[in-house]
Amino acid sequence: MNIGLDMMGGDYAPLEAIKGIKLFREANQDAHLTLFGDAELVNTLLAEHGIDQNTCTLVHTTQVIDMHEHPTKAMREKPDSSISIGFQHLAKGNVDAFISAGNTGAMMVGSLFSIKAIEGIHRPTIGAYMPRENGKLGWLLDAGINSDCKPENLVQFAILGSLFAEQVLNIPNPRVGLINIGEEEGKGNILAQAAYPLLKEESSINFIGNIEGRDIFLDKADVMVCEGFTGNVVLKLAESVYPFIQARGIKDPFFDMFEFEQYGGVPVLGVNKPVIIGHGISHGKAFKNMITLAELMIRKDLLGKIKEKFTT
Amino acid sequence: MNIGLDMMGGDYAPLEAIKGIKLFREANQDAHLTLFGDAELVNTLLAEHGIDQNTCTLVHTTQVIDMHEHPTKAMREKPDSSISIGFQHLAKGNVDAFISAGNTGAMMVGSLFSIKAIEGIHRPTIGAYMPRENGKLGWLLDAGINSDCKPENLVQFAILGSLFAEQVLNIPNPRVGLINIGEEEGKGNILAQAAYPLLKEESSINFIGNIEGRDIFLDKADVMVCEGFTGNVVLKLAESVYPFIQARGIKDPFFDMFEFEQYGGVPVLGVNKPVIIGHGISHGKAFKNMITLAELMIRKDLLGKIKEKFTT
Repeated sequence: MNIGLDMMGGDYAPLEAIKGIKLFREANQDAHLTLFGDAELVNTLLAEHGIDQNTCTLVHTTQVIDMHEHPTKAMREKPDSSISIGFQHLAKGNVDAFISAGNTGAMMVGSLFSIKAIEGIHRPTIGAYMPRENGKLGWLLDAGINSDCKPENLVQFAILGSLFAEQVLNIPNPRVGLINIGEEEGKGNILAQAAYPLLKEESSINFIGNIEGRDIFLDKADVMVCEGFTGNVVLKLAESVYPFIQARGIKDPFFDMFEFEQYGGVPVLGVNKPVIIGHGISHGKAFKNMITLAELMIRKDLLGKIKEKFTT
Repeated sequence: MNIGLDMMGGDYAPLEAIKGIKLFREANQDAHLTLFGDAELVNTLLAEHGIDQNTCTLVHTTQVIDMHEHPTKAMREKPDSSISIGFQHLAKGNVDAFISAGNTGAMMVGSLFSIKAIEGIHRPTIGAYMPRENGKLGWLLDAGINSDCKPENLVQFAILGSLFAEQVLNIPNPRVGLINIGEEEGKGNILAQAAYPLLKEESSINFIGNIEGRDIFLDKADVMVCEGFTGNVVLKLAESVYPFIQARGIKDPFFDMFEFEQYGGVPVLGVNKPVIIGHGISHGKAFKNMITLAELMIRKDLLGKIKEKFTT
């Protein structure tokens, strides 16, 4: 197993990526890593942090896509950037997964244009972890990539989310809820009204019906589907809670779950290979968790299971 | 000034409405009240709570619309319900405002069919208070009545919300933010992309641009506009926070603001007369606050100001 990691992505690159590798190694995890970035800089840091360089392959890249660059333009104009080269290696099969905490848009462009959507999947998606009062995690999708959706897209999100919840979050037969503004079938906007019967008909998922805003932090559904506009507003609202908790000196295990950094990053679901996108502010722990997630996605063959579902 | 109050609406009717009247009177507020409900029951409770019956007019009604009845059906089949009779009195001008913590759908039907939308307003709306970390309140609309919207609807919500914020929340020149999934113009779903330039052009509001989910509990915009799907999910999510806080024994002034009951109810903005809808679980304090809100809306002539804006 060979996991590719963009060393130049994120606000604290490459130092926090290095710290993440160290934490990953300390947890006795032995996947081989391929590191994309400035070789001299990365080598020096690897040595400084006492990381065995035999467990990593270094691929020297000379360009960096900044956080605020226009994604398609940057991907075109910076062919030797760590993200561009990382995707080349992923496409060729030199690495089995690619991780970056860099420009999210560029990561999406790379995913859609070099790795491409799995046949049959109309809209690859990104999800988000949602804290639950009982200490478990829910999985909400779409978290902001697809802001206008068709009912069929929500069904595909539900299938992708269910496979992720089952394989990666270890939830057998995950309950799927449609985020809506009423409990009964027939409630909601045009999209939710049209998606409900399609979700009900889809035999490969465990659809439990509508859930409302008040259910999002409760363990009512394991997989919560909506278009990416509502999903993104919910995600950013949830992400805003932890700073309040910290600033006010509140210590509480439920609210500690709102520290989104601990979740590392999230996979782009629906593309042909494992791609994981991290938050720009990712620190060591987040990088470690992203590498662990990639390792788990490969070990469980999540992609194989998704492809099997969509091609049969 | 004569404020109409449905005594039979809400989960704890009519006792909590009585308690609300008592609290309102104790605050030395002297608006005359017209109470719609079972006269014997209400009279007994007024006497028991030592409320001066000269400050109230009782209108006996024999029917009650339950919380879960189908709104239009219930309004048609229960012409002598407290809600139906209340709206009749409001339409005739016997009362200057009408308040109920009963069936929200029936209150909307009454608002739209007996009071009607103000000329020029396409979609009357309901807003929601949003707690802010600095102790102030924001105003989000639409909170769930209009789940599919056109860009022009959002502009009208912004105008209505601005007048409400200015007159009732006492915020001069309120800042209007468009709830979106990115900061820059051009971001978002089709609706948000189309609404942005219209909001920018609308000279009667102080449009500050897009705000994101993370800004909702921050004092970034006073008035936050979106369609009612996202708004309702956000509202119900926010409403779910206080029970967690209570259950976990957290005491904090910011999180105390998530006790939504304290805000009483919210007005239906865009109809010809003041109508206020409360939460089914309203207790005395909520009823008191709803009567106070009605009194303030009448005293400030909010409706006159809205009509002036939309007819010129």
